[in-house]
Amino acid sequence: MLVQDRLADLRRRFHRYPEPAWREFTTTALLVEELRQLDLDDLAIGPDAYDPADRMAVPTEDELAPWRERARENGVDADLLDEMAGGNTGCVAVVDRGGEPSIGVRVDIDGLFVEEATGDDHQPAREGFRSEHPGTMHACGHDAHMTLGLALLDSVIESDFPGRLVVFFQPAEEEAGGGKPMAESHYADDLDYLLAVHVGLGHPTGEFVGGIQAPLAMSHLTIDVHGESAHAGKAPNEGANAIQAAATGVEAIYGIPRHSDGMTRVNVGRIEGGTTSNVIADHVTMRGEVRGETTPLRDYAKAEFDRRFEHAAEIHGCTADVSVTAESPRADSDPDLAEFVYDVARQHADVDSPLVHADFGASEDATFLMQHVQDQGGLATYLIVGTDHPTAHHTSTFDVDERSLTIGADVLTDTVLDLATVDQDCTR
Amino acid sequence: MLVQDRLADLRRRFHRYPEPAWREFTTTALLVEELRQLDLDDLAIGPDAYDPADRMAVPTEDELAPWRERARENGVDADLLDEMAGGNTGCVAVVDRGGEPSIGVRVDIDGLFVEEATGDDHQPAREGFRSEHPGTMHACGHDAHMTLGLALLDSVIESDFPGRLVVFFQPAEEEAGGGKPMAESHYADDLDYLLAVHVGLGHPTGEFVGGIQAPLAMSHLTIDVHGESAHAGKAPNEGANAIQAAATGVEAIYGIPRHSDGMTRVNVGRIEGGTTSNVIADHVTMRGEVRGETTPLRDYAKAEFDRRFEHAAEIHGCTADVSVTAESPRADSDPDLAEFVYDVARQHADVDSPLVHADFGASEDATFLMQHVQDQGGLATYLIVGTDHPTAHHTSTFDVDERSLTIGADVLTDTVLDLATVDQDCTR
Amino acid sequence: MLVQDRLADLRRRFHRYPEPAWREFTTTALLVEELRQLDLDDLAIGPDAYDPADRMAVPTEDELAPWRERARENGVDADLLDEMAGGNTGCVAVVDRGGEPSIGVRVDIDGLFVEEATGDDHQPAREGFRSEHPGTMHACGHDAHMTLGLALLDSVIESDFPGRLVVFFQPAEEEAGGGKPMAESHYADDLDYLLAVHVGLGHPTGEFVGGIQAPLAMSHLTIDVHGESAHAGKAPNEGANAIQAAATGVEAIYGIPRHSDGMTRVNVGRIEGGTTSNVIADHVTMRGEVRGETTPLRDYAKAEFDRRFEHAAEIHGCTADVSVTAESPRADSDPDLAEFVYDVARQHADVDSPLVHADFGASEDATFLMQHVQDQGGLATYLIVGTDHPTAHHTSTFDVDERSLTIGADVLTDTVLDLATVDQDCTR
Amino acid sequence: MLVQDRLADLRRRFHRYPEPAWREFTTTALLVEELRQLDLDDLAIGPDAYDPADRMAVPTEDELAPWRERARENGVDADLLDEMAGGNTGCVAVVDRGGEPSIGVRVDIDGLFVEEATGDDHQPAREGFRSEHPGTMHACGHDAHMTLGLALLDSVIESDFPGRLVVFFQPAEEEAGGGKPMAESHYADDLDYLLAVHVGLGHPTGEFVGGIQAPLAMSHLTIDVHGESAHAGKAPNEGANAIQAAATGVEAIYGIPRHSDGMTRVNVGRIEGGTTSNVIADHVTMRGEVRGETTPLRDYAKAEFDRRFEHAAEIHGCTADVSVTAESPRADSDPDLAEFVYDVARQHADVDSPLVHADFGASEDATFLMQHVQDQGGLATYLIVGTDHPTAHHTSTFDVDERSLTIGADVLTDTVLDLATVDQDCTR
Repeated sequence: MLVQDRLADLRRRFHRYPEPAWREFTTTALLVEELRQLDLDDLAIGPDAYDPADRMAVPTEDELAPWRERARENGVDADLLDEMAGGNTGCVAVVDRGGEPSIGVRVDIDGLFVEEATGDDHQPAREGFRSEHPGTMHACGHDAHMTLGLALLDSVIESDFPGRLVVFFQPAEEEAGGGKPMAESHYADDLDYLLAVHVGLGHPTGEFVGGIQAPLAMSHLTIDVHGESAHAGKAPNEGANAIQAAATGVEAIYGIPRHSDGMTRVNVGRIEGGTTSNVIADHVTMRGEVRGETTPLRDYAKAEFDRRFEHAAEIHGCTADVSVTAESPRADSDPDLAEFVYDVARQHADVDSPLVHADFGASEDATFLMQHVQDQGGLATYLIVGTDHPTAHHTSTFDVDERSLTIGADVLTDTVLDLATVDQDCTR
Repeated sequence: MLVQDRLADLRRRFHRYPEPAWREFTTTALLVEELRQLDLDDLAIGPDAYDPADRMAVPTEDELAPWRERARENGVDADLLDEMAGGNTGCVAVVDRGGEPSIGVRVDIDGLFVEEATGDDHQPAREGFRSEHPGTMHACGHDAHMTLGLALLDSVIESDFPGRLVVFFQPAEEEAGGGKPMAESHYADDLDYLLAVHVGLGHPTGEFVGGIQAPLAMSHLTIDVHGESAHAGKAPNEGANAIQAAATGVEAIYGIPRHSDGMTRVNVGRIEGGTTSNVIADHVTMRGEVRGETTPLRDYAKAEFDRRFEHAAEIHGCTADVSVTAESPRADSDPDLAEFVYDVARQHADVDSPLVHADFGASEDATFLMQHVQDQGGLATYLIVGTDHPTAHHTSTFDVDERSLTIGADVLTDTVLDLATVDQDCTR
Repeated sequence: MLVQDRLADLRRRFHRYPEPAWREFTTTALLVEELRQLDLDDLAIGPDAYDPADRMAVPTEDELAPWRERARENGVDADLLDEMAGGNTGCVAVVDRGGEPSIGVRVDIDGLFVEEATGDDHQPAREGFRSEHPGTMHACGHDAHMTLGLALLDSVIESDFPGRLVVFFQPAEEEAGGGKPMAESHYADDLDYLLAVHVGLGHPTGEFVGGIQAPLAMSHLTIDVHGESAHAGKAPNEGANAIQAAATGVEAIYGIPRHSDGMTRVNVGRIEGGTTSNVIADHVTMRGEVRGETTPLRDYAKAEFDRRFEHAAEIHGCTADVSVTAESPRADSDPDLAEFVYDVARQHADVDSPLVHADFGASEDATFLMQHVQDQGGLATYLIVGTDHPTAHHTSTFDVDERSLTIGADVLTDTVLDLATVDQDCTR
Repeated sequence: MLVQDRLADLRRRFHRYPEPAWREFTTTALLVEELRQLDLDDLAIGPDAYDPADRMAVPTEDELAPWRERARENGVDADLLDEMAGGNTGCVAVVDRGGEPSIGVRVDIDGLFVEEATGDDHQPAREGFRSEHPGTMHACGHDAHMTLGLALLDSVIESDFPGRLVVFFQPAEEEAGGGKPMAESHYADDLDYLLAVHVGLGHPTGEFVGGIQAPLAMSHLTIDVHGESAHAGKAPNEGANAIQAAATGVEAIYGIPRHSDGMTRVNVGRIEGGTTSNVIADHVTMRGEVRGETTPLRDYAKAEFDRRFEHAAEIHGCTADVSVTAESPRADSDPDLAEFVYDVARQHADVDSPLVHADFGASEDATFLMQHVQDQGGLATYLIVGTDHPTAHHTSTFDVDERSLTIGADVLTDTVLDLATVDQDCTR
């Protein structure tokens, strides 16, 4: 079993090399380096782990190139880079003792386009493991998730666990791009249990949640507004102003009515368009998203989003295309499995506030894996390892409490081992 | 005197290497190559032509670097590139016969961030002199302006012109960045006449305008909106949405009331901000502009622009900073000089529709030079060489009629020579 | 006990005379006429039932006058009108047998500014009891509520009920104006139980809900935008456009971020301003509201609403004042009392779908009475009598299924009588 | 000839009874009372002066009724009111000596929906002739125009003027409703000259403008937005929010691009819709307008206005209808007649600043009469009698300098008499 210091070292090493969706070349290499030191029964990398055609939100080759180059500079082996050509990152690690049960664990590995804080009050900056990739950061704890996945494998290999353990090191969670190919992979078949893992989410060190409820259904959208350029001083009336159209569209989508059936979310999080100050812009591209407490609510928001951008564009003589780049469904934790995890967690000395359930309020493409396992008769839960985090996820000063790594590793290991002692609906 | 084919060749050569403001490394090199073949009395390049500190709208070193690199790839001499370090492009060419009058001619040299059309109905594409710089284009005729400047110098050098001719090959007109340093230069002092030259502007081949009236006063603006990022699904209320604030600001500035005193213009022509779909954007940068029929009208629009963005940002808990990156005043053509040019033009066989005056409706930083010359007691005019152009300036299918190059060169030359035969208020 | 036909007759009579908040002159007179035929121990009208100073959302004398005049035309007695001077409508009816328990029942009496449908598919139109007050309608079932209150009193008076029954015929529920004065009245003191009654809300005939959960906290708001008028053709720049400011404000408030803690609502439901087409408007008045799943969520929305309108106004050189005209807190049904009602309801032959709880999703100023009773140690519930309604509440074709009147009267009566047989926490 | 005090008295009397478009019952009665004391050859009132079917912007009978009632209270004769039934106000007064020339003079008579100031610094308030009609005001000087019309008739009747003088006391100028019927009337036929009269417009006492140029072409618009009502708390998603749609539309029309061909104007000056705070509004009505320096520019703005409102409505699931309620074309003053008036004016002792021309910047339905006369070969001008006015037209503190009444009456009279001494193109 890995000790606290080793866990912190691992996590800090991942933290230094954050890579966004499908660009996790260095990250996968770091994982593979560790995994190859373990006595695994199977290790599938990239296209061996899933069908690349099932991926969503795949970047263009132009977007991938600098990250592959950066990985090369980080010392990643050329053969390994070749295996991941086209951005087929991530891997699946398997321990297979021939018996039962068959347990899947999913951890995600991608970073975010967030510029990490540099101040001394930010631990990674102060202690020298701040992101080495400018403009990118592990601001959601996936560095901790990978560490937990490795620690779990290490402990289970040392144990007399009789069954099959499949750990999914999934890329592109933030773009909802990697959950689907992992769920479609044969590695996801015939699992009795699926544990998806996340740290924090407002739960401090010492809390542990057996299973979250109601992750939001979600669609990532790309919005393209096309107009006509013209000279802004000489003939503004001859243009069709794509920036003005985008502005009207942005105003319009935040004004989508709240729905009586439950929670929805809308956002435009990225905008880029036009050329320079004296030309009426003829093109704007945006990235946005909609979410819903249920899949129909997500679809309500998506339909409104679409219609509003279309007419907002027409107001200004422009056209707008809204396309879906990635989506994930809603899937709920099975209460029996959630309670099982809760029971394990509350026996841990450092877990002083175990919870069976908690609300989520966000989206997760782990729901693809959960739904797949549930469809095949298995049980799935999305558990939370509490960790103190000074600021919110996805912000430049996010950090985790490394003491929670041991707690998480212990509870995960005990859960996997204990599940081998019960029948398939978690009843002892 | 340069013949039609030679003029077209020159123009097409410039056309292939469009470079935006202060990035005219290859362009300046092409000019210098031609100018060095002429019997000039002075040729000042970059910092020798003006004080770099007087420049406006100067790009960052990061923005300049790829263009310098491209120039190197285009074969530009390393020493010449060193002379232009920091983006000090452009040059001033002088013929000085020791007598009077002293005449300035201003032509501008920069291209635009417009992706040139590729269709066969677009002459530069069809005949193989389309832009070799992706995303950039000579879409305003500055390639023709440079050609006219060279042709004029060639003809005057061949003549018995007794005075002093100073041709300003000015960078960064589109950003209103180069007019001021040229006007502040000692080369602009003690000029009896100043001729600023433009082709087209809606005037077909065969038209010629002695002097435009009422170029708009103008300010280029940079708008920075700062908010707070947050997870768009989990806690949208914790963010301060910079994209939403920018949208409200854009809507607000186009709604600035029309002014009873005359024409104003407002635009936001470039926008970029946020990171990805599921993060509330914490920053948006925009480039915009305001114009006015008079300087006070421009200032009215600027004050409204500023206030509106400030409060639009505050609606969404954000802040907005609006800063001026470049400005040009209004300056009018002197009627006597305009009429003089008109008289010359109407005697040209191919000018079938001469005009004394025309309205302009746009802005020009040639007004800095015009104002400077007028302040020192000289006369200035902004003349237009008519040319058929299939589509509007600043669009991807803009082109000029090369037959107009001869007309322009002839009328310019005759004007310069004739001005030597009259007294200083253009009276023969 | 009143029979079905008599209940329908009563309801239809109320239906013909809908009167909005604090204008229920005819309605109160109809109630008093009925109540005076019953053997009541107390009947307090208007200022005798509550302190007029506690009222909220009170109309101006100008707004009241036409309704008082209309009541006069409807034949309402002059003395009774004098008692209700200033819009002090509504009444409280008491049966007091000297013993225990003490039970309050709240029914509301006001109509809505909705123009009632005239088509033959709308029962009140077809059968001749459509609203006789143009532009006003009982579109929320308060006509049924009053009928239920009268039927309950009639039955309890006939029974051997040993305690005290206080029925609050409350005005101005739709404006959240009447709940507070009723709750502050001495009639609301020392009640062991409080039953608030509503029909429909999506529950069909045969359903019955023991107690709703989570009525939204709510604030009604008035927004005044002040600008400067000017001639729209001659000098638009001299104005400060209050209509443009209102538009920006409306866009801004619908764009208030969804909150991670739960549901919020915002609306502007009424707007009026400006004078005519060629004058820049100098004033706009709006009526709006905010709601929240909790009182802090309501306050979040209110603070955002306020700030957004303030800055939206400043964008256009205007000022905005947002003031609260009425508010109601959140208060939940006590589970024990809700279950008690449920137990009674499910024994009724025509209740085939009893429910203990249901969500609400709207606001109600009955929460003032509920909170008051709960603060004094009593139990309160907000129950729903299911009724088929062809279209949504507050629409022009809303109607109730009169068969539900008997069900409602029966269950209410049985609940009141049964509560006399249990101890105070509803335990038999 | 009327003396200064008599002119001031007349003007103050008109000032006390401002009446908006087609509601000028009292005003017409006051005019008729004065006109009947003059030795006229013809006096045509209402339907005798024009064809009521040619009117535009006619109010509904409901809108007319209170003004007719008010006129009755002001003592207007019942027979006269009958003549004006349906809002056929205004009159035409004729002096006909049988000879030439035939001269038309147009003065307008309607007031505005502006609440007049009450402060002591506002002369009409201080000296007791403030508007007696709440919410309505002579805020554009039409009280002075009527006075000038009467004074002119009085003087010409006393003179040996040989021709025909037709004075049009035109209703509904502010709504562009009365110019067309007056122009279509036979009284407008065969006029050699047409003088339209206005005071002020930024020109102080002592200035006099022979003929304004470029009155804007204009269209008055009514915009109806239809949506679906719903309960704002319970089911906002079931509504189609007409207030939100109106807000988006208002933002959109002020954002119509400035046109390269010249000045445009847009405005929404009146808005009303929705019912109350907790209902999603299903209807909003607005009154707006567009103007253009030329009729095509007006049409550009009108087409954009239309399209923008249509799509703004569709963003929110609503529909919008934009209809034209009144329009006026552009018509320019004839230079010869303007110069003639200028020549007369500059000989007046109190005219110290005569001008031949001035710009206008607003709209006027006098253009119908001007165009009609010009189409028939006559000359027309729109002259301005300078008057100090403390604040802008259409504001609550607008006032005129009564000294200008004598100047205006004198110059008008002299112009009419002098025109009888020249041939038809104003040449002496």
